[in-house]
Amino acid sequence: MGATHLAGPVLVVGTGLLGTSIGLGLSRRGISVLLSDTSPTAQQVAQDIGAGSIYVPDSSPEPALVVVAAPPDVTASAVSRALRDHPAATVVDIASVKTSILRALQADEDLGAADLARYVGTHPMAGREKSGPAAARGELFTAMPWVICAHAGSAQDSVRIAGSLAIDLGATVHRLDAAEHDAAVALVSHFPQVASSLLASRLMNAPAHALALAGNGLRDTTRIAASDPRLWIQILSHNAPELVGILHGLREDLNRLIATLEDPQGPGALLDLAELMGEGNAGQARIPGKHGAPPQAFAVVTVIVDDKPGQIARLLTDVGEAGVNLEDLRMEHSSGHQVGMVELSVLPGRSLELTEALVERSWKVVQ
Amino acid sequence: MGATHLAGPVLVVGTGLLGTSIGLGLSRRGISVLLSDTSPTAQQVAQDIGAGSIYVPDSSPEPALVVVAAPPDVTASAVSRALRDHPAATVVDIASVKTSILRALQADEDLGAADLARYVGTHPMAGREKSGPAAARGELFTAMPWVICAHAGSAQDSVRIAGSLAIDLGATVHRLDAAEHDAAVALVSHFPQVASSLLASRLMNAPAHALALAGNGLRDTTRIAASDPRLWIQILSHNAPELVGILHGLREDLNRLIATLEDPQGPGALLDLAELMGEGNAGQARIPGKHGAPPQAFAVVTVIVDDKPGQIARLLTDVGEAGVNLEDLRMEHSSGHQVGMVELSVLPGRSLELTEALVERSWKVVQ
Repeated sequence: MGATHLAGPVLVVGTGLLGTSIGLGLSRRGISVLLSDTSPTAQQVAQDIGAGSIYVPDSSPEPALVVVAAPPDVTASAVSRALRDHPAATVVDIASVKTSILRALQADEDLGAADLARYVGTHPMAGREKSGPAAARGELFTAMPWVICAHAGSAQDSVRIAGSLAIDLGATVHRLDAAEHDAAVALVSHFPQVASSLLASRLMNAPAHALALAGNGLRDTTRIAASDPRLWIQILSHNAPELVGILHGLREDLNRLIATLEDPQGPGALLDLAELMGEGNAGQARIPGKHGAPPQAFAVVTVIVDDKPGQIARLLTDVGEAGVNLEDLRMEHSSGHQVGMVELSVLPGRSLELTEALVERSWKVVQ
Repeated sequence: MGATHLAGPVLVVGTGLLGTSIGLGLSRRGISVLLSDTSPTAQQVAQDIGAGSIYVPDSSPEPALVVVAAPPDVTASAVSRALRDHPAATVVDIASVKTSILRALQADEDLGAADLARYVGTHPMAGREKSGPAAARGELFTAMPWVICAHAGSAQDSVRIAGSLAIDLGATVHRLDAAEHDAAVALVSHFPQVASSLLASRLMNAPAHALALAGNGLRDTTRIAASDPRLWIQILSHNAPELVGILHGLREDLNRLIATLEDPQGPGALLDLAELMGEGNAGQARIPGKHGAPPQAFAVVTVIVDDKPGQIARLLTDVGEAGVNLEDLRMEHSSGHQVGMVELSVLPGRSLELTEALVERSWKVVQ
């Protein structure tokens, strides 16, 4: 790990999954962390797993940075209280929505411009399928985007401190203003979540013989429909205006598609369908690849393996010995067989070499 | 490989990706395959890569089975011609839609009941991101579902032959009637495709700073939006009635969601959102797991690795040596870092043991 940029102590307000993960990550870097939660149990668990020590007003040292890691609907009031209780500290929050919180703080009569200058909204784009302090991980933010949303009145020093928090936890800093942030996450995070939930909800009453035909397409598109509703209803309601704009666009496209499919032999029907699919191609192609690289088509080498311990290990050992870097790996999930296919994605120039190396080592490469 | 069930010769009509893959798979099992395509180039490529020999009317042997592997919009006429040209053969098609083809054949005045008895509709649920005979693979159908749709007039012998074709190619046989099939694939295949295309098309004009925040949620939900429009417009238009019914349901849910988000502070808004998310949870949970097993929550062990050749191989070697079977593997794709996280899914009872084994071998396991 590199040098630590942040000066402590850091007070974490809210010791759920994210707050406790921040505490763990900073504590492991030797930064002094104080923990506070409205639930005595939650703050005790966070302390017990090494995220820091429980904050005791009047006796704990004064924090240089307060990280408010509360649910979105109580974030603004927790930030306001932190700004007043700790008049020398920078205060950041980590909620997934930024405009509604900034507006609430700007409208807060208890806060002056000097208070607001110490506030910086941030959003670490990381999470887990589980919640609560026991699921926390100090490495949760490693290599993930962390958006820093300075506002017009933010002090430069506070913006720098917010950035240091992200960097110390291994994240990649992105700078956007609150409106840009909310529009961006509405599109790349909230909209896919809603679309996946809408899609998956159609499966509720599906016959079992239909679900038995499910392939990777259905699995991929519905994976995030398993997300926890409790947090999401707050996110969606706080970012409603941005999300509604996108959903209006979706509804227009959907209405057009339904009209086309209601008269599939009608004039222009096939052209309409081709247009829809083509727009999907174009949109999908704009998503950047691994490590922020431009989207890239990898070459895929498919290998048939038995579903037994050690098979994939043995395969990837051979891939490693061939000296070819693996860009991605997918396991084909299908029903009723004890063999499967593994798709190895590599740079296009390396696939032939890899295929030859694997065939030489007796792997069944699909050609 | 097990015993071959199918008697040849098998005539494959249409040497695109699927037809040529069938030819390759059967040829490798020693079954005599004849190839025919309206494109002389396509049938030549198929023969050159070993899928069989080009069919020459009047001189080639008479086929026992004809597999029509033509695009959906010409499938019915190709089946009709095959039934008349080969009066002793079973004729199957492999198009992704079944009712429209069966209806066209039943309405065909050139065909009698004895002809129709020799026809069985089928649908192998396999494909690739590429098309054409050069992309064919004999193992394309291994462990994939293959739906056999006998109709009321199908001869038992022809149904048995259709099933043998699927079994010989390593697929898993599912028996449904044409209407059940079309409703099932509308839901588990055509609807996710359309939803993914609609979702991805919203990204066409998105700012780059928004797309830079894309995570696995967006990547998973839009992956199949990259599908080739040419085949899909035929599939969608042929199965329009079934798909429209599902899209009406989606539109109702979408209208409800938009109304809720347009008044996010209104009475019942949060409850509405919770309901949407909950329905998504319930639908997603019904998708069966690997090998047709009931859906199962695997335990995930997350490991931080450097992005260098051989790292993942080394990791999976250690997983194999720990004797724990890998149920799934996901590589975390995020921007701007040369380290990544690998999520290893294992049976819940094995995760602790695996974590200990990996930590002992100096892996950085996220805990």
